[in-house]
Amino acid sequence: MPKNLYVGLDVGGTSMKAGVVDDAGKPLASVSVPTEAHRGQEVGLEHMCQAIRQAIASAGLRLKDISAIGVATPGTMDIPGGIILDPPNLKPWRNVPVRDHVAKTFKLPTAFQNDANAAAFGEFWAGAGRDVHSLVLFTLGTGVGGGIIIGDLVIEGEHSHGAELGHMKIEMTNPRQCGCGRWGCLEAYASATAVVKRTSDALAQKGGKSSLKSIQNKEGGLTSRDIFDAAHAGDALADKIVDETAYYLAVGAMNMMHTIDPDMIVFAGGMIAAGDSFLQRIRRHVKDLAFPVPAEKTTICYAQLGTDAGFIGAAACARKLHIQKKKKS
Amino acid sequence: MPKNLYVGLDVGGTSMKAGVVDDAGKPLASVSVPTEAHRGQEVGLEHMCQAIRQAIASAGLRLKDISAIGVATPGTMDIPGGIILDPPNLKPWRNVPVRDHVAKTFKLPTAFQNDANAAAFGEFWAGAGRDVHSLVLFTLGTGVGGGIIIGDLVIEGEHSHGAELGHMKIEMTNPRQCGCGRWGCLEAYASATAVVKRTSDALAQKGGKSSLKSIQNKEGGLTSRDIFDAAHAGDALADKIVDETAYYLAVGAMNMMHTIDPDMIVFAGGMIAAGDSFLQRIRRHVKDLAFPVPAEKTTICYAQLGTDAGFIGAAACARKLHIQKKKKS
Repeated sequence: MPKNLYVGLDVGGTSMKAGVVDDAGKPLASVSVPTEAHRGQEVGLEHMCQAIRQAIASAGLRLKDISAIGVATPGTMDIPGGIILDPPNLKPWRNVPVRDHVAKTFKLPTAFQNDANAAAFGEFWAGAGRDVHSLVLFTLGTGVGGGIIIGDLVIEGEHSHGAELGHMKIEMTNPRQCGCGRWGCLEAYASATAVVKRTSDALAQKGGKSSLKSIQNKEGGLTSRDIFDAAHAGDALADKIVDETAYYLAVGAMNMMHTIDPDMIVFAGGMIAAGDSFLQRIRRHVKDLAFPVPAEKTTICYAQLGTDAGFIGAAACARKLHIQKKKKS
Repeated sequence: MPKNLYVGLDVGGTSMKAGVVDDAGKPLASVSVPTEAHRGQEVGLEHMCQAIRQAIASAGLRLKDISAIGVATPGTMDIPGGIILDPPNLKPWRNVPVRDHVAKTFKLPTAFQNDANAAAFGEFWAGAGRDVHSLVLFTLGTGVGGGIIIGDLVIEGEHSHGAELGHMKIEMTNPRQCGCGRWGCLEAYASATAVVKRTSDALAQKGGKSSLKSIQNKEGGLTSRDIFDAAHAGDALADKIVDETAYYLAVGAMNMMHTIDPDMIVFAGGMIAAGDSFLQRIRRHVKDLAFPVPAEKTTICYAQLGTDAGFIGAAACARKLHIQKKKKS
């Protein structure tokens, strides 16, 4: 019996990544193509199809070798409809029928999924979570996204708003405003953007010494990387910010441990470059916060697939669709 | 083909309720038996078996008419193991092998579930949620419990801590202490106990007038019922407490709408006696708090099965087990 192969495509605001993935979740080849959202959605759809073709070619394969395609994109979206609705990171796209366009172009079964859900499904299939039954993944970047997987089920929600983990409300009395306009969202505390904002606020308030003051005045200003580096180097203000960030993420983790109660909580995205000491801090705060049994038994770890998680997860969605179709026929 | 019938048993701290339920979720008969946990777990197990026998007899049936049994109990527990571990409301019980005892006694397939999960499954099968694909249920009583159902799947968690919705953390800066010892849990704001506590605190702080002051000094003290009644009668302090309670519950609902994104949020338990005006307040706060699409599309309502939800849900678990066993054989 020939092995099944899938193409996964992960569309981002700046670039999109496509790869051919085998039945065990191993990528055979991948390519990156600029998204150029500003050139409009027709161009965007064409770039998606190009990326898929290039991925197949760079694996030395032909379209007939592929069993199904999966596409992951940022929101807002209608997941069952296969449509991107009004994506803040892909302006000026609106109501783009991604799934049907790709399915028609390649005449293959095509799955569609939110990008953070796909990343979680990728880690579940072939990354940090490959041996567990369920996981909750937090992506830490400009925002805080997420994905919830329970036994091969992607919790995408009834209105495509499942696992918007950055928009749990964790503060009522003195809430920070979130990029979404709401108040007290986890994202307003624990995204890379929020880490910089909280540091700038602290530097403005306190007259205290910090190595970050000089960096702040340089071109480009502070990044979350600078703050984690300064904490490593012993800067007290940076250390406090980093520890508080770990605490906020532990609150997010605890809330998922008391509702989903997964085998594993996975942190992914640019901010995990902060390294093992940051993970240890999150784990310590989780131990203080959560119920004893989940606190002891839930694995808290970093993602393993890096920027490949999205297309591998999109391929996992393609594989699930392929298996479902085979069962039905 | 004869119709399948199930027995559901819902064990509570004071009494337990058992009923025979048909394949459509309709109870044919039910009985109530005192739990008398203080008399020890052997007596407790015997009461459970008596309740099951009495339910069957009061429906005019015999054991051979029953396809499977479901038992729901309060925690802490090991759901897959069928064991109550160290239940705060059933002292001095410890490590009680409920499922195996019932299964051996009646020689029937026996399912075991957490009581709030079972209530959610009952409402999903035969109550408020009978026409939806997914729901999240909050039980409002001495504490705040919960259940999450997604397409016939009860989210019981990997460590039997799923849907402990009262123990989401919603406040960091100025958190109230919860009965569980933690700080800032939803339960510390929105349980009946918390409503009374918040009112007592407000009465102690403010010198202002409130009709509740006189009630507070009577025997038995304040109840959440008194507070909802006073709000209805126009007492300003009570009205503020009730509106804040609706807000806290809306925060809990919002957090579930941004993570599970169910079709429906259901409120159950003694506190829903507060009536329609309280539900309207919760809905208003949800509209202000949540993302536009789930805010518009998620149904927010009260439970419909009252105190029958637990045994009907336990019967639903029995039915699911029966169907699984039939499929396998």
